[in-house]
Amino acid sequence: MNVSPPPADALSMIIAAALDEDRASFDVTTRALVPPEQAGEATVLFKQSGVVCGLDVMAQVFQQVSDEIEVTSTYEDGDWVDAGTEVAEVTGPLAAILSGERVALNLIQRMAGIATMSRAYVEAARQGGSARVVDTRKTTPGLRAIERYAVRVGGAHNHRNTLEDGVLIKDNHIEAAAQREVDLAGVIALARERSAHTVRIEVEVVDASMARAAVTAGADVVLLDNMTPEEMRAVVTEHRADPANRRVLFEASGGITLETIAEVASTGVDLISCGALTHSAPALDISLDVRPA
Amino acid sequence: MNVSPPPADALSMIIAAALDEDRASFDVTTRALVPPEQAGEATVLFKQSGVVCGLDVMAQVFQQVSDEIEVTSTYEDGDWVDAGTEVAEVTGPLAAILSGERVALNLIQRMAGIATMSRAYVEAARQGGSARVVDTRKTTPGLRAIERYAVRVGGAHNHRNTLEDGVLIKDNHIEAAAQREVDLAGVIALARERSAHTVRIEVEVVDASMARAAVTAGADVVLLDNMTPEEMRAVVTEHRADPANRRVLFEASGGITLETIAEVASTGVDLISCGALTHSAPALDISLDVRPA
Amino acid sequence: MNVSPPPADALSMIIAAALDEDRASFDVTTRALVPPEQAGEATVLFKQSGVVCGLDVMAQVFQQVSDEIEVTSTYEDGDWVDAGTEVAEVTGPLAAILSGERVALNLIQRMAGIATMSRAYVEAARQGGSARVVDTRKTTPGLRAIERYAVRVGGAHNHRNTLEDGVLIKDNHIEAAAQREVDLAGVIALARERSAHTVRIEVEVVDASMARAAVTAGADVVLLDNMTPEEMRAVVTEHRADPANRRVLFEASGGITLETIAEVASTGVDLISCGALTHSAPALDISLDVRPA
Amino acid sequence: MNVSPPPADALSMIIAAALDEDRASFDVTTRALVPPEQAGEATVLFKQSGVVCGLDVMAQVFQQVSDEIEVTSTYEDGDWVDAGTEVAEVTGPLAAILSGERVALNLIQRMAGIATMSRAYVEAARQGGSARVVDTRKTTPGLRAIERYAVRVGGAHNHRNTLEDGVLIKDNHIEAAAQREVDLAGVIALARERSAHTVRIEVEVVDASMARAAVTAGADVVLLDNMTPEEMRAVVTEHRADPANRRVLFEASGGITLETIAEVASTGVDLISCGALTHSAPALDISLDVRPA
Amino acid sequence: MNVSPPPADALSMIIAAALDEDRASFDVTTRALVPPEQAGEATVLFKQSGVVCGLDVMAQVFQQVSDEIEVTSTYEDGDWVDAGTEVAEVTGPLAAILSGERVALNLIQRMAGIATMSRAYVEAARQGGSARVVDTRKTTPGLRAIERYAVRVGGAHNHRNTLEDGVLIKDNHIEAAAQREVDLAGVIALARERSAHTVRIEVEVVDASMARAAVTAGADVVLLDNMTPEEMRAVVTEHRADPANRRVLFEASGGITLETIAEVASTGVDLISCGALTHSAPALDISLDVRPA
Amino acid sequence: MNVSPPPADALSMIIAAALDEDRASFDVTTRALVPPEQAGEATVLFKQSGVVCGLDVMAQVFQQVSDEIEVTSTYEDGDWVDAGTEVAEVTGPLAAILSGERVALNLIQRMAGIATMSRAYVEAARQGGSARVVDTRKTTPGLRAIERYAVRVGGAHNHRNTLEDGVLIKDNHIEAAAQREVDLAGVIALARERSAHTVRIEVEVVDASMARAAVTAGADVVLLDNMTPEEMRAVVTEHRADPANRRVLFEASGGITLETIAEVASTGVDLISCGALTHSAPALDISLDVRPA
Repeated sequence: MNVSPPPADALSMIIAAALDEDRASFDVTTRALVPPEQAGEATVLFKQSGVVCGLDVMAQVFQQVSDEIEVTSTYEDGDWVDAGTEVAEVTGPLAAILSGERVALNLIQRMAGIATMSRAYVEAARQGGSARVVDTRKTTPGLRAIERYAVRVGGAHNHRNTLEDGVLIKDNHIEAAAQREVDLAGVIALARERSAHTVRIEVEVVDASMARAAVTAGADVVLLDNMTPEEMRAVVTEHRADPANRRVLFEASGGITLETIAEVASTGVDLISCGALTHSAPALDISLDVRPA
Repeated sequence: MNVSPPPADALSMIIAAALDEDRASFDVTTRALVPPEQAGEATVLFKQSGVVCGLDVMAQVFQQVSDEIEVTSTYEDGDWVDAGTEVAEVTGPLAAILSGERVALNLIQRMAGIATMSRAYVEAARQGGSARVVDTRKTTPGLRAIERYAVRVGGAHNHRNTLEDGVLIKDNHIEAAAQREVDLAGVIALARERSAHTVRIEVEVVDASMARAAVTAGADVVLLDNMTPEEMRAVVTEHRADPANRRVLFEASGGITLETIAEVASTGVDLISCGALTHSAPALDISLDVRPA
Repeated sequence: MNVSPPPADALSMIIAAALDEDRASFDVTTRALVPPEQAGEATVLFKQSGVVCGLDVMAQVFQQVSDEIEVTSTYEDGDWVDAGTEVAEVTGPLAAILSGERVALNLIQRMAGIATMSRAYVEAARQGGSARVVDTRKTTPGLRAIERYAVRVGGAHNHRNTLEDGVLIKDNHIEAAAQREVDLAGVIALARERSAHTVRIEVEVVDASMARAAVTAGADVVLLDNMTPEEMRAVVTEHRADPANRRVLFEASGGITLETIAEVASTGVDLISCGALTHSAPALDISLDVRPA
Repeated sequence: MNVSPPPADALSMIIAAALDEDRASFDVTTRALVPPEQAGEATVLFKQSGVVCGLDVMAQVFQQVSDEIEVTSTYEDGDWVDAGTEVAEVTGPLAAILSGERVALNLIQRMAGIATMSRAYVEAARQGGSARVVDTRKTTPGLRAIERYAVRVGGAHNHRNTLEDGVLIKDNHIEAAAQREVDLAGVIALARERSAHTVRIEVEVVDASMARAAVTAGADVVLLDNMTPEEMRAVVTEHRADPANRRVLFEASGGITLETIAEVASTGVDLISCGALTHSAPALDISLDVRPA
Repeated sequence: MNVSPPPADALSMIIAAALDEDRASFDVTTRALVPPEQAGEATVLFKQSGVVCGLDVMAQVFQQVSDEIEVTSTYEDGDWVDAGTEVAEVTGPLAAILSGERVALNLIQRMAGIATMSRAYVEAARQGGSARVVDTRKTTPGLRAIERYAVRVGGAHNHRNTLEDGVLIKDNHIEAAAQREVDLAGVIALARERSAHTVRIEVEVVDASMARAAVTAGADVVLLDNMTPEEMRAVVTEHRADPANRRVLFEASGGITLETIAEVASTGVDLISCGALTHSAPALDISLDVRPA
Repeated sequence: MNVSPPPADALSMIIAAALDEDRASFDVTTRALVPPEQAGEATVLFKQSGVVCGLDVMAQVFQQVSDEIEVTSTYEDGDWVDAGTEVAEVTGPLAAILSGERVALNLIQRMAGIATMSRAYVEAARQGGSARVVDTRKTTPGLRAIERYAVRVGGAHNHRNTLEDGVLIKDNHIEAAAQREVDLAGVIALARERSAHTVRIEVEVVDASMARAAVTAGADVVLLDNMTPEEMRAVVTEHRADPANRRVLFEASGGITLETIAEVASTGVDLISCGALTHSAPALDISLDVRPA
């Protein structure tokens, strides 16, 4: 799978926090009933069809519980599997598998769900055009690093990761400046002056004239918010004509669904952002069949 | 609202981690465009009908960004509001409101969604009987403290919070013991011997004879997993007859939905656990209308 | 030794905090005088008879200082040894042994002391009956995980580990409710309603009539606080007669000593809790004879 | 009381760790039974005579649970009180008092016990001479900052606090050097060369000739380990004669008890170190009478 | 001063780490000699002329030691002061001022040094043209947040803050790709495909033909590394001619000094990056005259 | 090299903080362009002559990024190398080398700079006498552990490491006591009474009579602040005459430079402290030539 893995330290912290929250090392049932030396194994079963995602994450969950656990698989993240597929085998101390099971499942079900939905959106968008489907910052608090990874595994792309790696001027920022009698061009100039030259300046607009003002004032990316496909097509067409705007990007956003994304893509926008990829992807039904070895 | 709030330290850590993940204090756009002294205000608008949940959590998110922010509301967690209701007002430095907005929304949309779904399940169950609707450990890793709170706000109850505050003997534990030639009675005796007397022992069973064996061996709670309503009703009726079992509780679990919960409740079980309350509740559509004050 | 080890993460944090407090890595004497490559060895000598406890803890202390240190022993936690027994050998870099010595000793002397006292109490209680001897939350702040382990190694049992894994209604809680005009039955009902069904409800009582009220109201465990053996015997006898109360447990507490525990056990109570196991166990005299190898 | 308080950050971490270990914020009983707004109060009762110690520590425990709690007292740390004295009053939210009670008691009972024993040793030593009674590094892992404070409150003094603030050359260090053919003078020279000039060099010796060698080689402090009073008196007398040694200090150590300390002090040593002050001080019996206000 | 302050959480961590490193709360001298209630005051004296920087940072250092300390000043960060100016007054508990003094000075001397050097570079560059003077990632490990702030206070700008907020393709990346038979255009396309659209793509080049290739392949920023002013002027002139490249930026880097920066600025480049601003700025000589109040 | 390495835990925290600050694990450029399996190598080139310092630190930086990286060298810390020397080779995953490069360089350039300057001062001082050249607490906040190590590598010595491992009475402390009508002898007595006997008491003096008073009152070390060489010589000579003062040390401080240090050493002082060693050492110019293997 040709995508960057979740950053190692972020992943490690997510897993540690989750195990701590569940007090996995205080698992009274397993500590009472399963001797540390009893061997175990478990099968990861996809009960729904979807995109495999989170194999390494699951392995690291179990390895934080016991470094004697191993996870093996003939699949890799990004593979499509049908319902009923046994995707991986876990072997190691039974007690450790049982104590880590819930955290592992809670994470990979969510990841596989996001990857599966991302793929669906990407494939639908491709029917309409070549726009890049991107996620948003509407991720689960604390889990962004793995949810962004799942988006990539599903074939979609990531928007800015944090509030630092990109300027995104929204209606609120513009309104705030207006109160101080700074117009849109002034806002963009101020952002340029006070941000690193390594980040682009993206401006949210609501109609064609505002888009025109943004481009004129030097916006690098124009976010067309809640505009109709016709309106978006008109804006894109207008600006593509001028070679000086060749590098300006147009992003569509606002309530885009699996049903509408192809039409949006057909307008010629460069990017389509979908909060749904992370905030509304249903968990995939995955189970762990654990047993003594 | 008469439910315990999220534990203060757990909540504080969730919020700090979320703001750090988003690098809220490095918000390049807001830092460039909004002077620290500009005042702002924001309205929390419920765009869908549902249960209010997370007002204090939202307040604490903003207060971690700036202790000058205040949140006021005439509603409280647990109130039902119709779509279109303005539920709260946020006032304080505009820059701080903007930098914390996304994290605040990501949290309360999820919380309100869980509270709303919990209320629906509780009301449906009440049509069938008096069973307590309880959540599970299928929560979002890292967010259990606030998701459990949302369940309570919705009128449902919490199952054990961690792997420490209750013994729950599942099929895997029984199978592991069987390999060592320990039968169900032996497993329960072992659990009793090796756990604190302050936690109950719950045993997952799959049919009436296993339920009988568990009760005879001293289980405090019997988890009827994936049994039909008829099977459950028979088990409950059989054991209620004996005064010595008066204190034994029966819990139904396994794929229970809003449609089936009333019938399950009618079987006389004491508890009905629903993973869906936390793992499948859709986020409620809530927006924050931010503007300079 | 058939008891659960201290939870791995809790143990690791205890050791790290202790070494940090002692600034072991800044040990000016050893850093000045002992070259990192000089080999060392040390013998762990029990100068008093008692129960071996803490061998793994000691090993982990040294391994946090240097992963080249090894601890070997023909004994295991729980063995009784006479004064003068050499219980274990430590080998590895001499400097690391010297820098970790004090923390290692401080921990195992305390652990062996608790295990030894626990064993004495358990053996004394056995003269009177089959009651389970349990510890309390009167542990050394920060060291509960290893002190509880030492209690288990000594053959006693653990009470609830934290304020979360068991409801224990004390006189203060009852008094607080009384002020709000809620009686004992109301208190127990409220606790039941607002706690997870996986924890038992224990109620502290001071006489027979209060015990009767608690049982009638559904208490799972009755804590007989500072009652005489005769009073306790009467309470136990009264309730054992009714099969519906078969599952109710009785716990004796309050100033129980090595001298009185057998008589208390003879009353038929199920549990005897002794704060002394952890708050008053004298450290066992154990020394480390360190030398160059 | 004219002694330095525990360092603020160390104290704050001790309390946070203790409350976290006890999961005070997850106190299921109190959360179920006591509404946050119910007011409470509590009296701190010394059931044994002894030295007051830990009033501020107790206050900080409660304030970490709720910043609305206040502790007031007409006593201060260092005062002697008789059994039965009500030493302080706690007022604030009842729930917070109950959730913090156990941690507060666990800490102050230990602190008052150490202060009381320290005072006894200091008073006994004063019968024999003017030697300073000092503690050792045999403290409870994690609690050194408050145990050292209790020693000071009792009128004794502190030895080096960590492995960094003083060179203490023990038999092991000397033996290690001997293996590399470095003699005592060489060891002391090496320590001088490789340590900061701001710390003294203390050398443990076992007889008069070794003491003489240490002084000659430039030791600043000589630790007379397990020597008889006669031997110690001879060593001290010998060296005091020479003005060049006027600044050399002599410390007695090794199994010194309340019974023997006066005689040891009479030998003229400057310091007497007693591990017992911290590792064997019994907790003082202190109770908290909590009630609704 | 119209620049963004250091992010609050980063600053707070820097200060806490510095005080902990210095064991400020264990300051044996001050704890021995200065009673907590003795009042103190201190004057911050600039012994060299330069740019004021770090007043708030200093205030926060002292406030972490004691929240009773206040810092007042009639200057603000960014002001130029002559040698001998008393820039601020510190008042509060004398002990706390003394324990925090060293950390406070260590930080502000460095900050004022960087701000002063930055201003010199900015003023020199202005003689040649309008290029933005920017810092680099050659900051002191751990102190980036405050060093970047000092750069801004001095009137210069910040380059990307971390490895995340900007793509910067260096010779190593290009060479690595070449080994896999990917040319410069391929490298830029790959970076575009795999990075967020919110960050710009900057490419380091060493001559005019490589610059041309980078622009053609879509680079947003071209880093002219170690090129002569003549070469840089030629590159800039060539590309400015084409309106399609209007948005492309050119950055000069490599050994630029106070002497050469005007000439570099005169070439028409948009940015000049100087590692010296942070890695070679000498600390400004600032003293704190502390005294009892 | 015969000096103590930086304490392991302090070093590990410095590196982790630096990598986190740089968001090395989120390196968008390298993650986009260099596949994890591509091998790399790098040469560490000293572009200036100086003392090698930081080889292990650099190794640990890279190993925190990837445990597959190895650093090999035929040099060791403390060796003098000429400009142009290739001092070490780094091999391992290319991506990891690139993501850690900046942090590694930022650290070792500073360390080598300090070691090189320290050596120069030590060699200069040796021309005048045998005084020990020592550093101060004027270190970079957060980096003291490695800067002190670099000082040792350069052949100089360390002053007290923190505010805890030595009493240093400055003019402010004396002035504070004077306000309370305590004279110098009283201050020294108070410090003695309230500090551990394992630390020396150093007193800052400004002239001969104050030095005399300090010695008489029992100071262990006298800090001659900003005195002329003649004054210092007189003080030293005066006190050396009396055998009772044989153990008193004299330290020179205050604006000592490479030019003046030999004359200062010739006065017979025992120690010369130079803040410049850490606060003014220029970074050594060291580069890393990274390439695919």
